[in-house]
Amino acid sequence: MTRYRLTLEYDGSAFVGWQRQDNGLGVQAALETAVEGFCGEQVIVEGAGRTDSGVHALGQVAHLEIERDADAETVRDALNAHLRPLPVTVLDVVEVDEDFHARFSARERVYLYRILNRRPAPALDGARVWWVARPLDMAAMAAAANVLLGHHDFTSFRASECQAASPEKTLDELSLARCGDEIHVTARARSFLHHQVRNMVGALQWVGHGKWSTNDLANALAARDRRAGGPTAPAQGLYLKAVHY
Amino acid sequence: MTRYRLTLEYDGSAFVGWQRQDNGLGVQAALETAVEGFCGEQVIVEGAGRTDSGVHALGQVAHLEIERDADAETVRDALNAHLRPLPVTVLDVVEVDEDFHARFSARERVYLYRILNRRPAPALDGARVWWVARPLDMAAMAAAANVLLGHHDFTSFRASECQAASPEKTLDELSLARCGDEIHVTARARSFLHHQVRNMVGALQWVGHGKWSTNDLANALAARDRRAGGPTAPAQGLYLKAVHY
Repeated sequence: MTRYRLTLEYDGSAFVGWQRQDNGLGVQAALETAVEGFCGEQVIVEGAGRTDSGVHALGQVAHLEIERDADAETVRDALNAHLRPLPVTVLDVVEVDEDFHARFSARERVYLYRILNRRPAPALDGARVWWVARPLDMAAMAAAANVLLGHHDFTSFRASECQAASPEKTLDELSLARCGDEIHVTARARSFLHHQVRNMVGALQWVGHGKWSTNDLANALAARDRRAGGPTAPAQGLYLKAVHY
Repeated sequence: MTRYRLTLEYDGSAFVGWQRQDNGLGVQAALETAVEGFCGEQVIVEGAGRTDSGVHALGQVAHLEIERDADAETVRDALNAHLRPLPVTVLDVVEVDEDFHARFSARERVYLYRILNRRPAPALDGARVWWVARPLDMAAMAAAANVLLGHHDFTSFRASECQAASPEKTLDELSLARCGDEIHVTARARSFLHHQVRNMVGALQWVGHGKWSTNDLANALAARDRRAGGPTAPAQGLYLKAVHY
């Protein structure tokens, strides 16, 4: 048996999310079918993050184990051939030790959230950004984002269906950058709660529109109540950018 | 009558190109229909560049004249409402003098060509880049690009169906930049021949793969014969980025 670490890019709008679901194709199932097409083996492909339906990946990481002896490049090219024409691509394959686990070995996850902040709708990137027509005060958002940094109980920004044992997480980065008409939010932590990034971005949008001050955001965090946490930003603007080990 | 200058973004994969065609929807026709929906007037919308089928725009410019008296923002928002759900957006509208002509007043056109240079296929940007799997020598391409700068007879990089009176053009910029796994080629000139950017990029790809030297590219230019000019890069990687007046 050989274990491989895969780095993946995918267009979330084509899938019901990472995980196998009854109502459509998951990225995980697409990969498992490709593995079977390549070597005839039925395996479980474990991912570092369970991205929701519509959430994209620039650098999702997964691992799998197969009997077939093949070098990493062969595995990459074969899986890519069997994945066609689905919009998921294996960017990189590396042989790893049998104690490597895509989910449990991950030291850090990095998400990118793209907000297109301009009045005209996107013609090119409709399914790739959150289009916010009204001007956002990025400086206010960036300042407010700092209150979320560090170790907190993030219940206010946690989906009700979240299965994590604890609502406490340590947020290492929540930074904003202007990129043409877009605002790029980068969120970095060892791990995140379900919908945490989308909920934090939704709350920052309220700050950007002047509906909330930095203090309101701090109070929302302190409330430890999802009903106090503001709106959820849509899935289509979110990208799992990288996972570090 | 008021004349307006429009700045446009569109996804070329949804259109047969800028111009009205018998075989599908042109961006021009889409805009003219939107104008009629807005004010009931049948007008001609003139564009700065006649982009081909599949070629995108980040900053195409067009002009039109209507009887209806409306401020520029109203025209922009109304046209955008009538263009939905087509992937073409009016980014900006400005009132201009009656001697402004989108095509004939243009001082400079800037095109961007995106090459994705990596072995795995694109999962997210399939219709937005030219995917070149084999590694390209960008330094060799950038050096060779310099032989095309300046005033030349560009017959070797001109489509046979080109209607320009003269094959002589002045190329002011042909530069390359690395952007992650992408190579971005920027081409800047007062005007271009039909397919000129795509043909130049196709020739640069041969240089990047070592099939041609800088000298071969110079010879191709000197031949003044399209058959000597190398391949044509696909439409989907090309963007009309800006038009300057």
